[in-house]
Amino acid sequence: MDNLFIIKIGGNIIDDEAKLLPFLRDFAAIEGKKILVHGGGKLATRMAEKLGVEQQLVDGRRITDAETLKIVTMVYAGYVNKNIVAQLQAHNCNAIGLCGADGDAILAHKRQHPIIDYGYVGDVDAINSHLISNLLSQNIAIVFAPITHDQQGQLLNTNADTIAQELAKGLSHDFDINLVYSFDKAGVLLDANDDATVIHEINPSYYRQLKTKQKIFAGMIPKLDNAFAALGSGVKKVIIGKAEKLEELIAGKSGTTIINE
Amino acid sequence: MDNLFIIKIGGNIIDDEAKLLPFLRDFAAIEGKKILVHGGGKLATRMAEKLGVEQQLVDGRRITDAETLKIVTMVYAGYVNKNIVAQLQAHNCNAIGLCGADGDAILAHKRQHPIIDYGYVGDVDAINSHLISNLLSQNIAIVFAPITHDQQGQLLNTNADTIAQELAKGLSHDFDINLVYSFDKAGVLLDANDDATVIHEINPSYYRQLKTKQKIFAGMIPKLDNAFAALGSGVKKVIIGKAEKLEELIAGKSGTTIINE
Repeated sequence: MDNLFIIKIGGNIIDDEAKLLPFLRDFAAIEGKKILVHGGGKLATRMAEKLGVEQQLVDGRRITDAETLKIVTMVYAGYVNKNIVAQLQAHNCNAIGLCGADGDAILAHKRQHPIIDYGYVGDVDAINSHLISNLLSQNIAIVFAPITHDQQGQLLNTNADTIAQELAKGLSHDFDINLVYSFDKAGVLLDANDDATVIHEINPSYYRQLKTKQKIFAGMIPKLDNAFAALGSGVKKVIIGKAEKLEELIAGKSGTTIINE
Repeated sequence: MDNLFIIKIGGNIIDDEAKLLPFLRDFAAIEGKKILVHGGGKLATRMAEKLGVEQQLVDGRRITDAETLKIVTMVYAGYVNKNIVAQLQAHNCNAIGLCGADGDAILAHKRQHPIIDYGYVGDVDAINSHLISNLLSQNIAIVFAPITHDQQGQLLNTNADTIAQELAKGLSHDFDINLVYSFDKAGVLLDANDDATVIHEINPSYYRQLKTKQKIFAGMIPKLDNAFAALGSGVKKVIIGKAEKLEELIAGKSGTTIINE
């Protein structure tokens, strides 16, 4: 099977053109099949402020009301997605920008929760691997905005980390998947404030050890649980590390590699 | 060669959900290969007002400055495009929403004008018929937002009528093209205020006659000149008529058909 890199880019990189442009240059240079998944960083929040749309919180959770859905659709699937695609084209990387409604690529349903109504938030049901494989086979890189649909005409706001993970799982029958979470930290750290304490490799037994000794920063635990879940679903490798070192991340020379053996 | 319908939807339909939804239902029902080209109606203007971005006019011409480009990218390629795609999916029409940067579908350059700087406005250079044909051959309808790119990383605002015409010309070697301009009038009218005066068919000699007798409403002349130019470039048929009668337009039972014989 062919290798496929699925790379999630963290929000703080999207916000910062000085970091985004070199990242896209590095992404363009990756050989072989590749997918980029992005959110919108603080751009959507700033747009909501400018438009006077207040962020709805219920029990401390962010709610996607109709106006917020409109804003994230504009910012993520419009402004951010198309600018990323145009930059990749400038680096001779033929890219296509999609949301989950396009080609029915990512089917979701509105989140059902016994207490909280999250609004227009989507939980993923299925990935259309046929269309995605077809585009990748034409050497087109796919750039996904984290908007899905329910096949009933409703767009839904979906977490970008989740999109990356669902794509990885849904495409694992067709490709050897390398799932890369790139953000502003050097990887999984023993000391959250010290990039030098990055753990090079984590397997399940080492992860249990780290958790028992409470050596893992609490915020990393959901990410690692998700990473192991992805590996359990057929994903070959999960890499977590600094977006500015994408080339080294891809080569396994930087960041934390999570493996299932 | 297969038939391909390229349908431009007028701005006033986009603005009006009560007209847009039945139009999309009719579009979804068209058998065979199809492309929809849309603008954003007054949605972009309203968004600019809300954001306090003043419309720049130079010598009475609208200028696309950087802030306006950002707004049209959000509204056209984000909000309008993705909502149209989601609606088509709900009508069992598998659709994909693109702008000209996606898959390098529509290459353009920033307009050069001896006197007026139009800002980020693109004039079309080339259509990537390979990608478009490939998507159409998978029975995917393509929905184009009127944003192009210059392969140097710059997105450009481009007139949606022009996009439809350039797609028609660029794809005329691969398909029998039916180019449909759908708007709020019944077609080319002898009396601009009376839908009953629609002309059923216009060929070049009849067009010369109508112009000589000054029977054509001045605003229609550029549209008709463009229609004949498209026919001259290999497009099979151009149809102009009411968006609400899309089914009849397609069947040649409504509107004005412009032919080259």
